[in-house]
Amino acid sequence: MSVETSPEDATQCCSPVMREPLSAEQSAELARVFKAIGEPVRLRLLSLIASHAGGEACVCDLTGAFELSGPTISHHLKVLREAGVIEGERRGTWIYYRVRPETLRAVSSVLVPADAEAVTA
Amino acid sequence: MSVETSPEDATQCCSPVMREPLSAEQSAELARVFKAIGEPVRLRLLSLIASHAGGEACVCDLTGAFELSGPTISHHLKVLREAGVIEGERRGTWIYYRVRPETLRAVSSVLVPADAEAVTA
Repeated sequence: MSVETSPEDATQCCSPVMREPLSAEQSAELARVFKAIGEPVRLRLLSLIASHAGGEACVCDLTGAFELSGPTISHHLKVLREAGVIEGERRGTWIYYRVRPETLRAVSSVLVPADAEAVTA
Repeated sequence: MSVETSPEDATQCCSPVMREPLSAEQSAELARVFKAIGEPVRLRLLSLIASHAGGEACVCDLTGAFELSGPTISHHLKVLREAGVIEGERRGTWIYYRVRPETLRAVSSVLVPADAEAVTA
């Protein structure tokens, strides 16, 4: 795939959602999720949770990867949770977080190339 | 597809990229793009450009959709351009913007469910 794009390529590039303008409401809802993951620590936390054994992780599993305090990690987890990217369940001392795949699907489907989406539809 | 998720679902949810932790560098690079589109006006601009006739649009095509000044729209377009989400080409008076599909592919592939990606690989 060439890095160069032509106007023709761009017309072909996008999911059905991108083939018509998003409404202000749709944009606000989707942008909230993109904003939550548009921060390096939060995106890395998301990947750490998604890839952790059993698909879930507690703060105790996550702090080691960062030179950040527990409360800072917890703040970022809260932002991800409020945007619906992850969900948490308290079990004993810890809250265990896991990815909400339906949210990732919703936002990735906005961006995924139409040719790929056509195959998987 | 159920909205409820189990730890098993979460393990299955994610692209290969999400099956192992992103490095700090990968996260920083990807988060830059998500941050650029994590703003309602910019996400809507992106969809307006992607869906515009010929796959390209100038500021003159875009201002009508917003109650925002031309300079404000131009600022948002600059953020999208600097993140590699769109590119611009000057022709006469106007700069014509189009989507860079390779950037959208790169970021959507991080989030797209593994089952969909397996089909399109």
